[in-house]
Amino acid sequence: MNVHPAIAAFATEGGALSVGGIPVDRLAERVGSTPFFAYDRGLLTRRVELLRSVLPSGIDLSYAVKANPMPAVVQHLSGLVDSFDVASALEMRVALDTPMPATRVSFAGPGKTTAELIQAVAAGVTIEMESENEADRVIAIGERLGIRPRVAIRVNPDFQVKGSGMRMGGGPQQFGIDSERVPAVLKDLAVADLDVLGFHVFAGSQNLRAESICDAQRQTVELALRLAEDMTGPLRYLNLGGGFGIPYHEKDQPLDVAAVGANLAELLDGQIRPHLPEARVVIELGRFLVGECGVYVTRVVDRKQSRGKTYLVVDGGLHHQLAASGNFGQVIRRNYPLAIGNRIGAEPDETATVVGCLCTPLDLLGSDVPLPRADVGDLVILFQAGAYGLTASPTAFLSHPAPAEVLV
Amino acid sequence: MNVHPAIAAFATEGGALSVGGIPVDRLAERVGSTPFFAYDRGLLTRRVELLRSVLPSGIDLSYAVKANPMPAVVQHLSGLVDSFDVASALEMRVALDTPMPATRVSFAGPGKTTAELIQAVAAGVTIEMESENEADRVIAIGERLGIRPRVAIRVNPDFQVKGSGMRMGGGPQQFGIDSERVPAVLKDLAVADLDVLGFHVFAGSQNLRAESICDAQRQTVELALRLAEDMTGPLRYLNLGGGFGIPYHEKDQPLDVAAVGANLAELLDGQIRPHLPEARVVIELGRFLVGECGVYVTRVVDRKQSRGKTYLVVDGGLHHQLAASGNFGQVIRRNYPLAIGNRIGAEPDETATVVGCLCTPLDLLGSDVPLPRADVGDLVILFQAGAYGLTASPTAFLSHPAPAEVLV
Repeated sequence: MNVHPAIAAFATEGGALSVGGIPVDRLAERVGSTPFFAYDRGLLTRRVELLRSVLPSGIDLSYAVKANPMPAVVQHLSGLVDSFDVASALEMRVALDTPMPATRVSFAGPGKTTAELIQAVAAGVTIEMESENEADRVIAIGERLGIRPRVAIRVNPDFQVKGSGMRMGGGPQQFGIDSERVPAVLKDLAVADLDVLGFHVFAGSQNLRAESICDAQRQTVELALRLAEDMTGPLRYLNLGGGFGIPYHEKDQPLDVAAVGANLAELLDGQIRPHLPEARVVIELGRFLVGECGVYVTRVVDRKQSRGKTYLVVDGGLHHQLAASGNFGQVIRRNYPLAIGNRIGAEPDETATVVGCLCTPLDLLGSDVPLPRADVGDLVILFQAGAYGLTASPTAFLSHPAPAEVLV
Repeated sequence: MNVHPAIAAFATEGGALSVGGIPVDRLAERVGSTPFFAYDRGLLTRRVELLRSVLPSGIDLSYAVKANPMPAVVQHLSGLVDSFDVASALEMRVALDTPMPATRVSFAGPGKTTAELIQAVAAGVTIEMESENEADRVIAIGERLGIRPRVAIRVNPDFQVKGSGMRMGGGPQQFGIDSERVPAVLKDLAVADLDVLGFHVFAGSQNLRAESICDAQRQTVELALRLAEDMTGPLRYLNLGGGFGIPYHEKDQPLDVAAVGANLAELLDGQIRPHLPEARVVIELGRFLVGECGVYVTRVVDRKQSRGKTYLVVDGGLHHQLAASGNFGQVIRRNYPLAIGNRIGAEPDETATVVGCLCTPLDLLGSDVPLPRADVGDLVILFQAGAYGLTASPTAFLSHPAPAEVLV
């Protein structure tokens, strides 16, 4: 039978899933309670290695902490990636608690409060400014603190990316400064006491089509070359965004990262190095780095038949893994890959519907899934749980205890 | 101009929203930070009074704590409603911390763990058993603890309710025991040491059509009369569910509760009292009791133009009020009612799009809303935030601080 690549990425021993070398049933005993999230340290390392092997050496790899802000995960990645991107003051603190230097941390997001901007200026991270109002506030804070803020301009590009799960550039947007306004803004910033490093252009996320990512990168570099002409000094920072998707559903094809890497090599040699020789060029990835490296482990609490249908009721649910229930931004619900913990790759015995423990019909984790038979006490594993899992879920919904997270 | 009924329910003073008699800008100073949730004690009381005025006196009113488990809210309601329904051990603790007697607390939900069932048996609450497996576990726990468990059977009815936002009965379901299985289950339970009180039939939620609620109640009573014949003792508990909806969107018409009350009076006099004289008849409501009594208060952090569109970026977002962003189970996103805190009922000056502070295009709180002009520092109020707001949202998403909740 076909095993989903996200399941196949994990080791198994006699059909039992292994996370970080530990059989998942033993890991459940170590954690002490289900449900829990487990992230595989080795898979994280290998994921970065995979990227390094296809990206040209002149490209820096940034981790978007919001995808999985577990401190241990961020610590582990600090030794593997070149920089971090954060989206809040707490994420910034987690990033700065690692050996990563503050100059390699960027802070993006459309609604930064003045309190957050003060923290960011004091920390010396790079503030990716999302509006002219934000720029004014950063200048004022820098003057007050006597610190020259390190900034980049987040640019809302004048093009759109096809095939993104979420579009974040082109047309009117809450993100960034419209590209046609950037020359005027640069002029204003030139007279302020700011260290303007460059640009951040992020056009979309969760894209599985290499050609549209390559196309966006080509257009981004073109745009950066144009905008760089209006900078006072050389462009030293160019964040091309990321948007690399991962395959959640059966019919999704994994992204061809080698094709993206080849395109980046071409852009680096043909455009960036000749025209922007001082630019640190960054690809920023969250989901792609961590999504496939984590599982959500639940236990069967009840097994029941209702009018011809078999239900497995587990002790987890959408309060921990909202996206898997199809209720977080998805238009059509499709199953995430899931398996019975000690029967990975086994032939299915039945078709079962896996539901969570919440008292709502939304709490559906797997609809009519072909599965080997599972009974009360067995573990049901949800894959693709390393990114936007726990923190992107309504953990307090129905007031169940928070699940543990472990990095193994 | 038309003011949404959920906005009109709150008092205003000179155009400024007032919660519990306190102008919202002053309340924001008292709370000390935005965003926050504020619930109006007087509105909660009046909501219960409204229900009491239309429901026949023989109907007990139960509050489904999951809609808003804030302890102060639950304490306040304990003096107003007849019973509580809980969906987890923590909700049970919050309920038992009020003066409500344990015998007036019911515990429902499809995936109760054995640990939760032990707590429930020890507490003496009524366990609404969702499956035969759960019944077996309850019996064993009762024997072990030397306590006779108080139980009801949650029944998955053989009919469906039209017009529900969420269907929770009819066809195959994870909820309850199929009605056709109930006679056999009752026979098994009769020989166990259990206090079988009756039935809970809950067919759907968020319904705005009185006729379909009345229809469901008629069918539920019919079903209960049939099932009661197989009980050993008299039926002492009949939970008819609730499902009363509230109008979120402009075109929604408020539910005609008077019509529902009239139907219940008819059922009570014509069917229930003659045939089930000992039954405590319960209507269980969550959203309908608390939804309209709460607001989510955010502050404008940025005001920006992008390619002809005006954006108000606020310091809150979908991490606190997921449903308002249209990302929690909704197929089509529609705006929740919102207003500028000190300009309630004012004529609009512009069309603005209100977005949260998260770095995702999902964080949309109001799309193209006609609003009086708002600037940085102004409060933007989201209404219908009293139910399934904070606890039904991914608070840790992007690691922003948790918002306060106040009952005023």
